[in-house]
Order: sequence, then structure tokens, then C-alpha cells
Amino acid sequence: MKTFINQADFEKMERFYRVSFFNTLSGIRSPFLIGTANGQGQTNLAIFNSLVHIGANPPALGIVFRPSTIPRHSLENLIETGVYTLNLVTTPMIDSAHQTSAKYDREISEFSAVGLNPIYYEDFHAPGVEESPLTLLMKFREKHHIAINDTVFVVGEILGVSTDKTFIDDNGSFLHQKMQTALVSGLDDYYQSKKMVTKAYARP
Amino acid sequence: MKTFINQADFEKMERFYRVSFFNTLSGIRSPFLIGTANGQGQTNLAIFNSLVHIGANPPALGIVFRPSTIPRHSLENLIETGVYTLNLVTTPMIDSAHQTSAKYDREISEFSAVGLNPIYYEDFHAPGVEESPLTLLMKFREKHHIAINDTVFVVGEILGVSTDKTFIDDNGSFLHQKMQTALVSGLDDYYQSKKMVTKAYARP
Repeated sequence: MKTFINQADFEKMERFYRVSFFNTLSGIRSPFLIGTANGQGQTNLAIFNSLVHIGANPPALGIVFRPSTIPRHSLENLIETGVYTLNLVTTPMIDSAHQTSAKYDREISEFSAVGLNPIYYEDFHAPGVEESPLTLLMKFREKHHIAINDTVFVVGEILGVSTDKTFIDDNGSFLHQKMQTALVSGLDDYYQSKKMVTKAYARP
Repeated sequence: MKTFINQADFEKMERFYRVSFFNTLSGIRSPFLIGTANGQGQTNLAIFNSLVHIGANPPALGIVFRPSTIPRHSLENLIETGVYTLNLVTTPMIDSAHQTSAKYDREISEFSAVGLNPIYYEDFHAPGVEESPLTLLMKFREKHHIAINDTVFVVGEILGVSTDKTFIDDNGSFLHQKMQTALVSGLDDYYQSKKMVTKAYARP
């Protein structure tokens, strides 16, 4: 039976209950690891689940940076150097990818701390994750200030894609079940996916 | 074996191949139906997959509106009236929810066209979807123009939540497998989810 939870009820929620409630009601999505390096080459790796498609021409993606949960280092590095990588997390990578959310000191790279290997691309400053089946090379393009809670929406352009072509079908679609793409709800509930159906283009 | 797909390769892609490629490489996420009504009460319902968590206090969510794929009516209505609903799509709802993406004439409501039932809340102009297990009542708060491709990022505040409390665990997290939350990659590849693990808060 449905009940209605209103703003007065929100205010009565215990702090961590409230965070879980609002983090998980927007559904499930694929986590990614963002790889950056600062001007001195010190690497950083952070998991996040707020990636959103912006468009295919030019190819562009958005990320919400919430200073409270995403280490500020990633945002500082990508603005300083203008580049970053996005690395799809797979189900075998969940433990190491989740561990990047621990608050390591700045001088410690999450790569070595969690046991993932950095990989470098020609003329590109930010490291990718060797264990990921899909790495996107990104150029920072726009930063929007979200007034409601002082978060930041970053828009980036895709400059290159490193993947195995057997993960792409004849229509250009990535085969997420074959890639073992991981899923997460909120910050800690992990899921796997099972393909159901490809629907035809809808007409009235 | 990984290969590298660069900007010159992007330009050689056939048009629909390119759209599928860039729509599906950002992973899988839960589709939602956005419910709106214009000033005269004419209802509109549209599926989209670009919902992103902004924060829990105040509770806020973002949506990317891409005029080419999301009917402009939803965006026009929510700006005109200041309110909209977000309705989680479940696996039994996939056929009807997907059908809302057909280009119906403005005077036709997608509710009746696809066979979903509108439900109204006290003092709230926008209709929810009765068949959805989770409806969010939203207030329009911010609109950001994304320069790279003239899309719009809309930020809204959650005013109320209509759901069954048995879908929420003791920690405040929604139980998406129990809700039968649907998943979509790009515009037409639908998936179901299976819970794997709840990870502990990560510490160095």
C-alpha cells in the first residue's frame, strides 16, 4: 500500500537514513572510476555514479561533483590539466573500485592503494585503468555551479575510446552483460544486470 | 584485445551507429517517466534516462533535456507550471513506458495512448503514474544551458515521495530488486537487475 512521505517527514529522518533514502530513490546506475593526475603527475582515482549522457555530436558526458562524497582532488586535477579518464566498473572490479572511496591522503595514489593499474595514452596526461574494459579519454569543457547545494556539474567531451570491439554490436551498442558492467544504487548497494529486450523505435 | 577509437573514427561512423555508440557507452541506468500538465491541464508523459542525484539536503535531482529525443512539451510544461513528477519504471511497465517515446501530437496525452493511469496529489498540478511503485513530486528550481550542444540541465527539489514502505529497508535504502526496477542502456536496450552485495563504508 502506498503512503505519502512529505517534507515534514524528511526533516524527521535520522541523518544517515536520509542520505540513503535520497541517494537510492533515483534508481540504479553504472559506476565509473575517474582517473586524473595533477600538474606534477601525482595520480588520483575515484568512484562515482553520477555520469549522464549529454549528446553524441559532439560526444559529451556530464558529471555531478558533490564535494562531500567525491574527493575534491579529481575536480581540481581535471580543471588544472584539462583532461580526465572515465573507466567503466565491472562486477569483478567492485571491491577495488569501491575502496577508492576511502579518504586517502593526497600523497597516496588510489591506484596502488586499491590494486588497480594505471595505463597511459599518447599525449594524454590522465591515467586510465588497465582492468576496465572501457576507458573514455575526456576533455574538460564546461563547469556549472548548482546553486541549490553548491555542487558542480562538469561537462566533458569524449576525445577517444579504448575498448575491445567484441563488446560492441553491429548497431554500435555496447553489450553490457558481456562486459559484466556493474551497477550501484546509492553509495554501497551493488547489482549486476541481465539483458531483457531491445525495443523497436516507438511510433504512435 | 583493446583497440583505440579516436575522433577521426567517430567522424566515419554511420549516423545511427554513432548515436547508439555514444548513448550506450555511459552504462546502464533506471528509466523514469516524467509527468507534467500545461496551464490548461493537458497532461504529458515522457520516458527519459538522464536522472542524476544532486544531493539529500535539500533533496534534489537533475535531468538533462535533449530536445532531439525528449519531447519539448515536458520541459515547457514544467517551466510554465513549476512542477513535475518523476515515476520509476519497473520491468512490467517497460512496454508502455517505452511507447511514450513515440512522437504523439500535442493534443494527445501519452497516458491514454500507452495505457497508463494518471494519479493526482493534493494541491499539485502535475500527474503521477498510478502503476509506478515510486513517484516523486518535484519543484523546478534551476535551469542551466549546456553550451556544447544547446541542451538544458534542469535541477528540481523533491517535495514529496509516494511509495510503499515495504520497498525501503531499515537503513533508508530502496530495495530495487523487490521493486522490479527496470534498467536501460541508450534508448532501447532494457535490462533487469540482481542484487549482489552491500559494501561497508570504505576506510584507508
